Amino acid sequence: MRNELKRGFASDNNAGIHPEVLIAIQNANIGHCIAYGDDIYTQNAIYKIKEHFGEDIDVYFMFNGTGSNVLGLKMLTESYNSIICAETAHINVDECGAPEKFTGCKLLSVPTENGKLTIEKIKYHMHDFGFEHHSQPKIISIAQVTELGTVYTPDEIKEISSYAHENGIFVHMDGARLCNAAVSLDRSLREVTVDAGIDALSFGLTKNGAMNAEAIIFFNKKMSENFKYYRKQGMQLASKMRFMAVQFETLLTNDLWKKNAEHANKMAKLLVEKVSKFPQIKITQTVEANGVFAIVPSEIIPKLQKEFFFYMWDENRSEVRWMTSFDTTEEDIDEFIEQLKSLLK
Amino acid sequence: MRNELKRGFASDNNAGIHPEVLIAIQNANIGHCIAYGDDIYTQNAIYKIKEHFGEDIDVYFMFNGTGSNVLGLKMLTESYNSIICAETAHINVDECGAPEKFTGCKLLSVPTENGKLTIEKIKYHMHDFGFEHHSQPKIISIAQVTELGTVYTPDEIKEISSYAHENGIFVHMDGARLCNAAVSLDRSLREVTVDAGIDALSFGLTKNGAMNAEAIIFFNKKMSENFKYYRKQGMQLASKMRFMAVQFETLLTNDLWKKNAEHANKMAKLLVEKVSKFPQIKITQTVEANGVFAIVPSEIIPKLQKEFFFYMWDENRSEVRWMTSFDTTEEDIDEFIEQLKSLLK
Amino acid sequence: MRNELKRGFASDNNAGIHPEVLIAIQNANIGHCIAYGDDIYTQNAIYKIKEHFGEDIDVYFMFNGTGSNVLGLKMLTESYNSIICAETAHINVDECGAPEKFTGCKLLSVPTENGKLTIEKIKYHMHDFGFEHHSQPKIISIAQVTELGTVYTPDEIKEISSYAHENGIFVHMDGARLCNAAVSLDRSLREVTVDAGIDALSFGLTKNGAMNAEAIIFFNKKMSENFKYYRKQGMQLASKMRFMAVQFETLLTNDLWKKNAEHANKMAKLLVEKVSKFPQIKITQTVEANGVFAIVPSEIIPKLQKEFFFYMWDENRSEVRWMTSFDTTEEDIDEFIEQLKSLLK
Amino acid sequence: MRNELKRGFASDNNAGIHPEVLIAIQNANIGHCIAYGDDIYTQNAIYKIKEHFGEDIDVYFMFNGTGSNVLGLKMLTESYNSIICAETAHINVDECGAPEKFTGCKLLSVPTENGKLTIEKIKYHMHDFGFEHHSQPKIISIAQVTELGTVYTPDEIKEISSYAHENGIFVHMDGARLCNAAVSLDRSLREVTVDAGIDALSFGLTKNGAMNAEAIIFFNKKMSENFKYYRKQGMQLASKMRFMAVQFETLLTNDLWKKNAEHANKMAKLLVEKVSKFPQIKITQTVEANGVFAIVPSEIIPKLQKEFFFYMWDENRSEVRWMTSFDTTEEDIDEFIEQLKSLLK
Repeated sequence: MRNELKRGFASDNNAGIHPEVLIAIQNANIGHCIAYGDDIYTQNAIYKIKEHFGEDIDVYFMFNGTGSNVLGLKMLTESYNSIICAETAHINVDECGAPEKFTGCKLLSVPTENGKLTIEKIKYHMHDFGFEHHSQPKIISIAQVTELGTVYTPDEIKEISSYAHENGIFVHMDGARLCNAAVSLDRSLREVTVDAGIDALSFGLTKNGAMNAEAIIFFNKKMSENFKYYRKQGMQLASKMRFMAVQFETLLTNDLWKKNAEHANKMAKLLVEKVSKFPQIKITQTVEANGVFAIVPSEIIPKLQKEFFFYMWDENRSEVRWMTSFDTTEEDIDEFIEQLKSLLK
Repeated sequence: MRNELKRGFASDNNAGIHPEVLIAIQNANIGHCIAYGDDIYTQNAIYKIKEHFGEDIDVYFMFNGTGSNVLGLKMLTESYNSIICAETAHINVDECGAPEKFTGCKLLSVPTENGKLTIEKIKYHMHDFGFEHHSQPKIISIAQVTELGTVYTPDEIKEISSYAHENGIFVHMDGARLCNAAVSLDRSLREVTVDAGIDALSFGLTKNGAMNAEAIIFFNKKMSENFKYYRKQGMQLASKMRFMAVQFETLLTNDLWKKNAEHANKMAKLLVEKVSKFPQIKITQTVEANGVFAIVPSEIIPKLQKEFFFYMWDENRSEVRWMTSFDTTEEDIDEFIEQLKSLLK
Repeated sequence: MRNELKRGFASDNNAGIHPEVLIAIQNANIGHCIAYGDDIYTQNAIYKIKEHFGEDIDVYFMFNGTGSNVLGLKMLTESYNSIICAETAHINVDECGAPEKFTGCKLLSVPTENGKLTIEKIKYHMHDFGFEHHSQPKIISIAQVTELGTVYTPDEIKEISSYAHENGIFVHMDGARLCNAAVSLDRSLREVTVDAGIDALSFGLTKNGAMNAEAIIFFNKKMSENFKYYRKQGMQLASKMRFMAVQFETLLTNDLWKKNAEHANKMAKLLVEKVSKFPQIKITQTVEANGVFAIVPSEIIPKLQKEFFFYMWDENRSEVRWMTSFDTTEEDIDEFIEQLKSLLK
Repeated sequence: MRNELKRGFASDNNAGIHPEVLIAIQNANIGHCIAYGDDIYTQNAIYKIKEHFGEDIDVYFMFNGTGSNVLGLKMLTESYNSIICAETAHINVDECGAPEKFTGCKLLSVPTENGKLTIEKIKYHMHDFGFEHHSQPKIISIAQVTELGTVYTPDEIKEISSYAHENGIFVHMDGARLCNAAVSLDRSLREVTVDAGIDALSFGLTKNGAMNAEAIIFFNKKMSENFKYYRKQGMQLASKMRFMAVQFETLLTNDLWKKNAEHANKMAKLLVEKVSKFPQIKITQTVEANGVFAIVPSEIIPKLQKEFFFYMWDENRSEVRWMTSFDTTEEDIDEFIEQLKSLLK
């Protein structure tokens, strides 16, 4: 018998599939469809995405966020370019060098306090344009939500994208948790992306209740001409694409994406609220979405992890990360707090 | 309203998901699981695969067949190597250069009559070992079932793998339709792969009724040390892996893979039997699995495709490909024959 | 003591440096120059090259022919493209997969009788445009002189380049022995390249008496914008470039290139004339430049090689290749013929 | 008429060829030699290199330092590895992303005060071993002389290499100015490389008076098995290699390398001594080899550059770099000081 696993705080991708998404997959399981996306489900899902992001966009479904990030960056660079990002960026530390391998580009990172780039930080790498010995900066990549659970305001994004465009470079957004950011800012998906000047978006719904729903969206079709070849060559073209497509459609209909993100964010707020009451615990980042970063007495961490699995963030300073998800319950949090209380006694 | 699509003969990946597979996905949608494969479902699926292929193997789930092929080849080569394959091989003509891009290797192809390599054909490229100007042959890659619907006998495979190993090179098998081949030969999965000397297998169940279930299997763990990094860097590491895992487990339990493959093969036999009665149609390849290749009067092709979609194989000689799948029915074939009859009148 | 080596017929790159070239290097060895090509010698050499090929060109010096070929191809392709060439092409068989590694492209080769592509042969690979599963043809690469010692006429080149341009693809020429071809055709360097529709030329003078003088020339500056970054990233940017530059200038002044090529071609004609008199020897390719291909009784080959080193071309049919160079003398040929005579007795 | 260029302080690769090296090239220009290094000159040069570095080494001549660095790193890594280096390292800032493009690896840099890595700095990147999401550290690359003109002591190198080897990783040395370092430390070439635990050395003599003499040396032949294929595929295999070989032999015979380096270092000492007398100029790095780094009043820099070309190092703080070379004269320095004096008045 399979053991039912308790909902922990390890990651929002440890959660399962939202029931409505699963039903949509079932409903799409009828008859034959042309493979590789030339089907009515994929077409409908793209219409739905355009409702959110506007008409003049180019959308490609991908297997995972790494695929979206890497191939999106590939589309917008030549191998002699460089990509500017935060030191903590997923593309910099969590993709095993996939961006370098597939694009040939150099990643130029900057330390940040809260996962967010600023123009001042970006400028550190903006030099030697035209000098052939030097990788030429071509993209700034930001994450929304950042890897530290913080959220860029639309104005902060606009400032970066204006600066980028003035300097002839692109802005890519890693939106693995875009829904959580939009909800946090009380803005539409469009307002925090294309309207803020983003050129290419890795749009992920897997962490929002999908089984596997990831896409790269180019906000200017001229940029992505011929992208389909990179998707195939990048090993990211799904054959039975209809089952990916209906996940997008379901989550983007009737605000399901929003409800899921709102719930996850709300649970994080609740968690941080309750956890803050323990003087032994120090919250290290403003909780703006569904991640809570905290310094916890190191001796209790292994015991706490046993019951509610979560990851160490920075071993050196005993910092942990707790992620909430669409299916986190208040009971989960209560039980966790109980456990914490008993361990901290 | 979504239109229910008729089952055509375009490809076995135009079919949907086997009902039992879908139920297994549903059943796995409980609680939280560690992402990226460190979960009980993935573990169980790997046990199940080992029941079929033996204990001393190394299995990695992948998103698609291209991923399995390309990263499997990467694991076993250096960039200065070459890969020998049939001219019609999927890795040679249907992966948009993914093998070259990711491995850096040269593909050396050989024309074949029936999609099958022979030692004589392979030898054409076996020269200049040790000569630094020349890409060094390191892998022979064969497809089982071949892209022309033919099947290697275990003896044919053994002959190739013995020759390869004597010459210090590996044999990779693209097993996108391995189940159909095993069933056709009335052999176990093991007998037509590891027992026949295959070193690495791209094992696909997507065409056998899965939604997306692909794996690369190395039959010698020493070869695949550190493969996990290539999978991640190759953008093929799934986060919610449990849902991929249960597809493997379901299809490999109670001979479901076998029933599905038997049915598809049987339908192809039925199709070729009925189609052969039309003197205007010429069958071009022995039907050994679930594909039928035929020369058809060119004027009727577009009309026939309208009702039952399928692909042209060779426009020049008016050759088409008809694929059957686990869900093809006798009615599908009867309707198709009716249609054909009326068009050929 | 160093042994003075006899001039053999192994390759025109076994020859040394033309005395005038060496003097030019000496003369350039004065004071300091800005490195990496920003010097007066490089500027002058480029002027000289423009005298031969026209003003509207973009020239980059490279270390070797492989560098010119590979980076030239890189400039004109994306990784999802394919490159069409003769099966015997240097890029296909003599560069250890460097084109695949650096460009990511697939090489599509065609067997030829005499090393020359024709439109009919090229067409074999011109299909599936727009189909994302298939590497998209983007360049036809031809060698002038071919690897089999034959020479394309300007009309043959024009026919290929017209066909290519009509189909939206480029033509690259591997001109490692371009001088020999021009001389053979009694045409200028320009007439057999840019005037015949070539888009990019690997222009080599190393085999014409230079120590190391190779360049990639783009005949349309729009194509090569930003090439300088590829040269640097491709590890082909020389620091003390002045010494490479003066080699170009010397050979391209006062027809020295022409005299060297004429002499080499003349020696090949003489060689084939004399060798043809032996009924046991069969010339296999028309001698149009400085290479002679012949089937020779296999038992005498090792003995002959001992005195005058040369390479086997096709072991299976006992075919050898004899190359002449700018410094081959009539005495070399006479001694060789003597040796041959005595061995064939 | 060509203008004789004054010896400036831009770079040691702006200097020409040492007269003895040129004579050696001339002397090697006799008869024919097998191309690509299978000749007596290359063999002799390798013997000579072994006299300096020991018998059990593997040496390959390369076109330039970038080639040596990049292919050396390629030999010792898989694409999922990372390479740790100083932020100022040549491989990090001056090779246009060539290491990333050819190896696929991630470069992990650390800021330093003086161009030198320390174990403490290295440790910043030594984590997440075995974690598949993270590029796995495999090489520490240090430069000797560093890009800031400083020199590692043998003990400092040993400390790094011991630490590396204990952690299962390699140490690569970029020895573009190794001779200057050895001379500065009064040690043999061997003592500051293989004896200090270096695994692979990019050994450059171009900056020591050669025209183009660069090599990669592996100090353990097991590591470099098959390197010859990477050299060819990496476009670094020279055809007329004898002319490169004799440059190595000449400079490594009768201590010519030493005299050249001693002279360059001595000139730098003289320069810094004289320049230090100007209170307006601040020397920013200890002068340990042939480079002088100084903050100079920004208004005089363009005027000074006009007469004696040199490069800005850090525009923001008005820091310049002056390099001396084997052919710098005391007169050069005197004239420069005169000029400086008059500008600083």
